[in-house]
Amino acid sequence: MILALAGGVGGAKLANGLARILPADQLIVAVNTGDDFEHLGLHVSPDLDTVMYTLAGLNNTETGWGRAGESWRFMAALGALGGETWFNLGDLDLATHVERTRRLAAGETLSTATAAFCARLGVPAKIVPMTDQKVRTMVQTADGWLPFQDYFVRLRCAPPVRGFRFDGVARAVPSAGLLQALSDPALAAIVICPSNPFVSVDPILSLAGLRDLLARRRVPLVAVSPIVGGKAIKGPALKMLQELGLDPSALGVARLYAKLIDGFVIDRQDDALTQAIAALGLRVLATDTIMTDPAAQSALAASVLEFAQRLRRS
Amino acid sequence: MILALAGGVGGAKLANGLARILPADQLIVAVNTGDDFEHLGLHVSPDLDTVMYTLAGLNNTETGWGRAGESWRFMAALGALGGETWFNLGDLDLATHVERTRRLAAGETLSTATAAFCARLGVPAKIVPMTDQKVRTMVQTADGWLPFQDYFVRLRCAPPVRGFRFDGVARAVPSAGLLQALSDPALAAIVICPSNPFVSVDPILSLAGLRDLLARRRVPLVAVSPIVGGKAIKGPALKMLQELGLDPSALGVARLYAKLIDGFVIDRQDDALTQAIAALGLRVLATDTIMTDPAAQSALAASVLEFAQRLRRS
Repeated sequence: MILALAGGVGGAKLANGLARILPADQLIVAVNTGDDFEHLGLHVSPDLDTVMYTLAGLNNTETGWGRAGESWRFMAALGALGGETWFNLGDLDLATHVERTRRLAAGETLSTATAAFCARLGVPAKIVPMTDQKVRTMVQTADGWLPFQDYFVRLRCAPPVRGFRFDGVARAVPSAGLLQALSDPALAAIVICPSNPFVSVDPILSLAGLRDLLARRRVPLVAVSPIVGGKAIKGPALKMLQELGLDPSALGVARLYAKLIDGFVIDRQDDALTQAIAALGLRVLATDTIMTDPAAQSALAASVLEFAQRLRRS
Repeated sequence: MILALAGGVGGAKLANGLARILPADQLIVAVNTGDDFEHLGLHVSPDLDTVMYTLAGLNNTETGWGRAGESWRFMAALGALGGETWFNLGDLDLATHVERTRRLAAGETLSTATAAFCARLGVPAKIVPMTDQKVRTMVQTADGWLPFQDYFVRLRCAPPVRGFRFDGVARAVPSAGLLQALSDPALAAIVICPSNPFVSVDPILSLAGLRDLLARRRVPLVAVSPIVGGKAIKGPALKMLQELGLDPSALGVARLYAKLIDGFVIDRQDDALTQAIAALGLRVLATDTIMTDPAAQSALAASVLEFAQRLRRS
């Protein structure tokens, strides 16, 4: 059994690769909910939805978020009524937010709602939120603290970042699904997907007790670099490394994870960083990490699992 | 200045006729909110929206509710997620419900939200909810009391009705717009539109103090029959008259309003009922009341206003 920790796009791609090569009951994906937010009275879970849509084969590969074949009639009508349009919600995607909000208001947990959606959409793996409690990522800028989606969508990541905090995380316990995966005797490896280390992975790692649980693991923990050839595949990871004065490379990411993980997966392009990363005490795998299509997702997933298996034996 | 009391489709048609022939500041339409309900976590105001869309020229003339050129992608996606689909919400229409719900949750009144929407949509008249407080129409059947939309949409008006109640109405005061219209020195007439007398008009009349205010009016109050030639133009009005043991005709409706109004407008087809209605102490106008297009709406509106003016002089 494999546990994957994932944020949005990059995490969803590797999670999909894992889902393509593992039996349905052998994969659990625990997803960041720090960038969840309430918008237009709806509970929006961007990362959960990206992972869910991707594993259901419903994701929009052009935008990297939302659903394929999406339309925007609701949003146009909302704009005509004077509503807020800075966060785009498609007509299909909206059904997820409305029904999730209804279920949460009726007392369901985010885990239960997610499981129901995954069952309806035919997702061949277990997807769980990192927690069922409220955690909200805040971004520190020169102008103060911003809610994550204000920074990420409204301001398009323009303000230089100074730091992050995850409101509520100290009291937020990992979801039952995440806890069960960690204590499952069948657990063979934990994979940190190539997601943003600051705003996708760190919220998960910061959950109450989670670092301790990970420190007591008996299985390999490997992370995949979201930085390839000095660039972020998607999103502001590179920009954040730079703005925080860190090495804007896979090595910079490896340093962030060094005390936590056993192995680090980088792209072949970054082969020259292997020694420096190994010097952090990490095993390194350099392979093709750019997941341009599902076949590439599966190939990387297989390489990562093989790497983890080697670490397990060593 | 004219005050029109309206429910959904029939009310919206006559209100539109009035809006077409009166200056924008000379018409206020007070709309039933007894059939408002909370669905999927959204505040839905069916009659307000029908009147608003109609006066904005955005209404769907085929369905009689909702918006022209509507699409149903949200609803299909909701069904795929296992959500409730018995009450159909179009992608365009949904924007109204989401934004209204957001505004109400932010503390706005339904009046304020309605005024904002009407301004954005270019509605050439003032549309106000009958009240800003919660009133919910309940329908009594052999199986007990049903919320109105369960009866009307989910069960398609199938269960025979035994009566109605309007939860909250005893404590619900008329909206500021409705009260202002009633006390406006420029008020020239009050028109009860050809809406369902039981579930569209009676909720308005049952508001705290409203019958007293109407009794003290100094202007004519005329009603237009929603029953023409022994048939309801739209909706369950005829069926309700029958099930309640009342005369299923324009005369039956006139009896319901007799103590309240000065004049009653029937269709030429029902000319034979004129004497019986006059015997109730009412002045009667028999004219063309079937509003098949906007020109017919304007024509009926003009006839009704002329009728009211005659009553004023007499």
